[in-house]
Amino acid sequence: MYVVNMIYFQCDYAEGADPAIIERLSSTNMEQSEGYGLDKHSIRAKELIKKRIGKENADVHLLVGGTETNRIAIQAALRPYQGVLSPDTGHIAAHETGAIESTGHKVLTLPNIDGKINADQVRAYVKEHYDSPTAEHTVQPAMVYISEPTESGTLYSKKELIALREATKELGLFFYIDGARLGYALASPKCDFTIEDIADLADMFYIGGTKCGALFGEALVILNDQLKKDFRYMIKQNGALLAKGRMLGIQFETLFEDDRYFNITKKAVEKALRIREAFEKKGIPLFGTSYTNQQFPILSNEQIKALEKDYVFELWGKSGDKTIVRFCTSWATSDENTEKLISSILSM
Amino acid sequence: MYVVNMIYFQCDYAEGADPAIIERLSSTNMEQSEGYGLDKHSIRAKELIKKRIGKENADVHLLVGGTETNRIAIQAALRPYQGVLSPDTGHIAAHETGAIESTGHKVLTLPNIDGKINADQVRAYVKEHYDSPTAEHTVQPAMVYISEPTESGTLYSKKELIALREATKELGLFFYIDGARLGYALASPKCDFTIEDIADLADMFYIGGTKCGALFGEALVILNDQLKKDFRYMIKQNGALLAKGRMLGIQFETLFEDDRYFNITKKAVEKALRIREAFEKKGIPLFGTSYTNQQFPILSNEQIKALEKDYVFELWGKSGDKTIVRFCTSWATSDENTEKLISSILSM
Amino acid sequence: MYVVNMIYFQCDYAEGADPAIIERLSSTNMEQSEGYGLDKHSIRAKELIKKRIGKENADVHLLVGGTETNRIAIQAALRPYQGVLSPDTGHIAAHETGAIESTGHKVLTLPNIDGKINADQVRAYVKEHYDSPTAEHTVQPAMVYISEPTESGTLYSKKELIALREATKELGLFFYIDGARLGYALASPKCDFTIEDIADLADMFYIGGTKCGALFGEALVILNDQLKKDFRYMIKQNGALLAKGRMLGIQFETLFEDDRYFNITKKAVEKALRIREAFEKKGIPLFGTSYTNQQFPILSNEQIKALEKDYVFELWGKSGDKTIVRFCTSWATSDENTEKLISSILSM
Amino acid sequence: MYVVNMIYFQCDYAEGADPAIIERLSSTNMEQSEGYGLDKHSIRAKELIKKRIGKENADVHLLVGGTETNRIAIQAALRPYQGVLSPDTGHIAAHETGAIESTGHKVLTLPNIDGKINADQVRAYVKEHYDSPTAEHTVQPAMVYISEPTESGTLYSKKELIALREATKELGLFFYIDGARLGYALASPKCDFTIEDIADLADMFYIGGTKCGALFGEALVILNDQLKKDFRYMIKQNGALLAKGRMLGIQFETLFEDDRYFNITKKAVEKALRIREAFEKKGIPLFGTSYTNQQFPILSNEQIKALEKDYVFELWGKSGDKTIVRFCTSWATSDENTEKLISSILSM
Repeated sequence: MYVVNMIYFQCDYAEGADPAIIERLSSTNMEQSEGYGLDKHSIRAKELIKKRIGKENADVHLLVGGTETNRIAIQAALRPYQGVLSPDTGHIAAHETGAIESTGHKVLTLPNIDGKINADQVRAYVKEHYDSPTAEHTVQPAMVYISEPTESGTLYSKKELIALREATKELGLFFYIDGARLGYALASPKCDFTIEDIADLADMFYIGGTKCGALFGEALVILNDQLKKDFRYMIKQNGALLAKGRMLGIQFETLFEDDRYFNITKKAVEKALRIREAFEKKGIPLFGTSYTNQQFPILSNEQIKALEKDYVFELWGKSGDKTIVRFCTSWATSDENTEKLISSILSM
Repeated sequence: MYVVNMIYFQCDYAEGADPAIIERLSSTNMEQSEGYGLDKHSIRAKELIKKRIGKENADVHLLVGGTETNRIAIQAALRPYQGVLSPDTGHIAAHETGAIESTGHKVLTLPNIDGKINADQVRAYVKEHYDSPTAEHTVQPAMVYISEPTESGTLYSKKELIALREATKELGLFFYIDGARLGYALASPKCDFTIEDIADLADMFYIGGTKCGALFGEALVILNDQLKKDFRYMIKQNGALLAKGRMLGIQFETLFEDDRYFNITKKAVEKALRIREAFEKKGIPLFGTSYTNQQFPILSNEQIKALEKDYVFELWGKSGDKTIVRFCTSWATSDENTEKLISSILSM
Repeated sequence: MYVVNMIYFQCDYAEGADPAIIERLSSTNMEQSEGYGLDKHSIRAKELIKKRIGKENADVHLLVGGTETNRIAIQAALRPYQGVLSPDTGHIAAHETGAIESTGHKVLTLPNIDGKINADQVRAYVKEHYDSPTAEHTVQPAMVYISEPTESGTLYSKKELIALREATKELGLFFYIDGARLGYALASPKCDFTIEDIADLADMFYIGGTKCGALFGEALVILNDQLKKDFRYMIKQNGALLAKGRMLGIQFETLFEDDRYFNITKKAVEKALRIREAFEKKGIPLFGTSYTNQQFPILSNEQIKALEKDYVFELWGKSGDKTIVRFCTSWATSDENTEKLISSILSM
Repeated sequence: MYVVNMIYFQCDYAEGADPAIIERLSSTNMEQSEGYGLDKHSIRAKELIKKRIGKENADVHLLVGGTETNRIAIQAALRPYQGVLSPDTGHIAAHETGAIESTGHKVLTLPNIDGKINADQVRAYVKEHYDSPTAEHTVQPAMVYISEPTESGTLYSKKELIALREATKELGLFFYIDGARLGYALASPKCDFTIEDIADLADMFYIGGTKCGALFGEALVILNDQLKKDFRYMIKQNGALLAKGRMLGIQFETLFEDDRYFNITKKAVEKALRIREAFEKKGIPLFGTSYTNQQFPILSNEQIKALEKDYVFELWGKSGDKTIVRFCTSWATSDENTEKLISSILSM
């Protein structure tokens, strides 16, 4: 349970939502609207998103959560005997209680390199599958799933994304990008691609709301025409067609007016990088190369003890006799708390 | 799309939420809390519900929507070859895009009588199954699903519920009650049971929020110990574990303080019955015997034309050359609009 | 358990297989062959079938049993939210323990007329689905399933089959024919179509072996190119790719040499019709209009008692205070037993 | 395709069945019997098996194939969010086209050591799962699956099996043993356990017929009472309830009379070990430590060329610049061909 007087850097979904969203929910509360996402707010939110990503022909569906979005998107794309390639650290492989398998599809894992997989790995896996005289005794790879940024906050470069796009196109696989924290990728100074690039490269991707300032909500964008048909049936069957769909419309409308989504995540990343800098200045190593809103310093037990008096953060894993921990920033992280943490780090 | 200057009686989820909910969301927005329903608001909401239904040992899970709740609850209870008995008009049979079947389980329908099924039908079905020398060639009935109130607004009496409980207990079936509009049942002058009775009789039931004044949310109550184990895994696997679970906690906390849930639905039912009375006074027949917030007058084409100039309502079905339509009230239905509708009915 | 000295007309799978099959299994036993249906017998069997049905481009897969064949064929054709239309008496609806539902797909039943459904029923169902403003809240009909002959031994005429083909083509549905007893349909004097017609009209159908003289085995024929891709993956995933696939090849090779399949079923139907004639002569009514190998007389309790002294037959259902029973013939029914039964019927 | 004049050591299912089986099929062909495994041969086969394993209370089910058996057994035992631990080389993990995942369950792989996993690995995995504060975000391990012998022909010792039994019991997991080639394990001179031990240790296991002298067929033995209920429904729903179930009964009856099953596999292992000895004598290394009917020599390209003139064997994998190949023996391997191969090896 949350403790009074502690400062939380544990995750990016500890608070409610960007105040503009709360205000909009309040001001529209007595409006009457169509149910199931056919309301004017949902329609406008979808238009704003399509305009922002430069794809008027995209289909956009507003869903409640990330696991829900992944399971519907992947299930909709695959035939029963097909599976999805994912880094072994991918959210669908590691943190969704087998949601993909529960729809009948195996997640085929590839070993991650700094949280990522590359086009060569994909090509090798698919070649090995089809080269086998008994290919039909194994699951057919039919999609590549990645997260941008990855689970450990790292980024695929534009070149890496293009290589994955080319490999999947050539091999006849779909390319799906989980953007639960996409806003933080785009806000990173190390990011060399735009959201338009993502829309050019992926067959489907989603723009995460839950971790980027909304109460909840993920905007799934379908670009490949093959994947568009009857998608609302898929949503309803999965129990994911929100009756008061306006709730999602209002939130994404708010986030995509005046680029609020991008400003929110930009501020969060700036704070995260100031914290990163403090760890570096202090000579504390960091796990991986995250220049997004998650930072993974590798701390000694003494350092953990020193910081956990005032701050809450997540234990992430082991690195020899030290511990990898995670500090997250979000729309709700204050300048004051950021400065306080930096000064605590530097004075350890 | 919704049209300006029209008055909407189409459904009970056209507006946002009871203002107390919006206010609470706003005032708690900057609180930090645990994710995934482990926050203090969710904990308190569950306590309030358990207290109100008189079952300290119940397990309560707060979920987003009704179809989601049904599919998780039913899937969790059944073995792969088992099915669920439902009225042919049941929501799981008719309006969920085969969500139950998508989890592998057949919905076994019984013909409804005024929206309901009875203990004799259940007994006969189960007896026929087990009497067959080839029972294993057919789906094994293992649960009874009903809605209270039903899809057409009618009510099971306490006696009917007890009969279903006795039959299911005797036959070894689970008894599950879909309470998407449970508040309206309890608020009906024809209702002869309490929410404590429901908790005494069902193995599982859910208290609907979406249609009873919340933005979204259904509180699933598990009373049978056999069904409690590992339920959060089921929720997560189905993509239904809301990251900012506090959103659900805050809403049900608000609804179950000071019996707000019951007061909201009470006012809605009163308005619905005044509308019913107007139809009756006018000599217009009603479909079924609904004394809850949904009213189903059977209108001629002229009557429909007269009313649809100012009001929006749903076309429900055919009855000879007339049409059954649906008028709904909710927390958001104003006295003014109710009076206006009544006067329009009477002056047709 | 089977009792000595009784004569069995209970079903068409009580004995082993046509002796030619047993002999061939024996004579080929020491041959070495490829596994998983890639052996020369399977290849030749498929060629013989394709030649016999007049479709060189068909894909033929040899599977073990009927329920297995139905579940794989239907699952392979449908998207997750789609269902299959079937007569309410269809095998997939009534006798497969929800096998279709276990793959996620709802069986959508239409009321049978003498065991059959017609094109008008299909058109009406599909129209109602797409006319609904909330079509996506219900299962999308995407295939029509029928059996030829039906469960009660009746036959669709060529005209009825063409009507179903035209309706499904126009509506964008697949047309699948379960031919568990197809040989008996083709052998009926009332049959006005050929196996070539079936291959012209269906998107997929299967030629039943188990009930038509084989130890086991059903030959699934896929005619629609859309349904051919990767089918062996589907078979393997369903645990239905027989390691010693030659067992199936040898059986169908034997059945499709010299039209043995058709001769076997012809003799069985002739015997069944002589039995039918005896019931008619005796003035005993028959249920439905079966001119295939199953006969359904409606017997009084006295008549049942008289016949069950010497014969075993199946109780099928009730008709007022009488009972519908089933007498089956097969490749193994002897002339002697047939004559004996006829004389018992006539002398009751 | 199989080529004339070649000698096949490619697999253990290239021929038909032990001649005693063919003869019995022939001699019983005209018997009439109950369908669906309720016939006297199936009943007797089950009795013989129960007697032989020393468990009168076991439930035995006769199924057609191995993948079918695994998917039904595992699906029947697990709740939707549970998975099964398996060596990464396990048949369910590597060679069943995701059959287990197609029933909704994730196969959780552990790295194999000489084809095996051990109790420590199981304990560590389960501990890590339950130690996690977010255990419910991952698949719950609920069963251990192993093969005896393993895919690479190696054997778990009795001590290793006991350790796995103790670990699974302590951790609340089921223990399931895939015995597709169990006969060859029991026939190995390195085997230190009996089939009675297997029945003492496993919750379920199956006795493989297909690869041990039958045309097809696997006898699933359920020892844990919890897993017995309603199992025939599971079989039927999976399309695996053979109409002429006697086919399975007759085969297992034949195999378990006079220990024919054990004699068949004994002779095959003897031949395999003579082949092994020849490779060893020649100084050719072998992959893993298989003392069962599969041998995996590591050959140079020249050696492969020399042997493939007269023999057919399977390419198994790479080992540096050499190739691991597989030679199998079976009931059908002749002494003559064995000697010829040995002499070819020695004279390379």
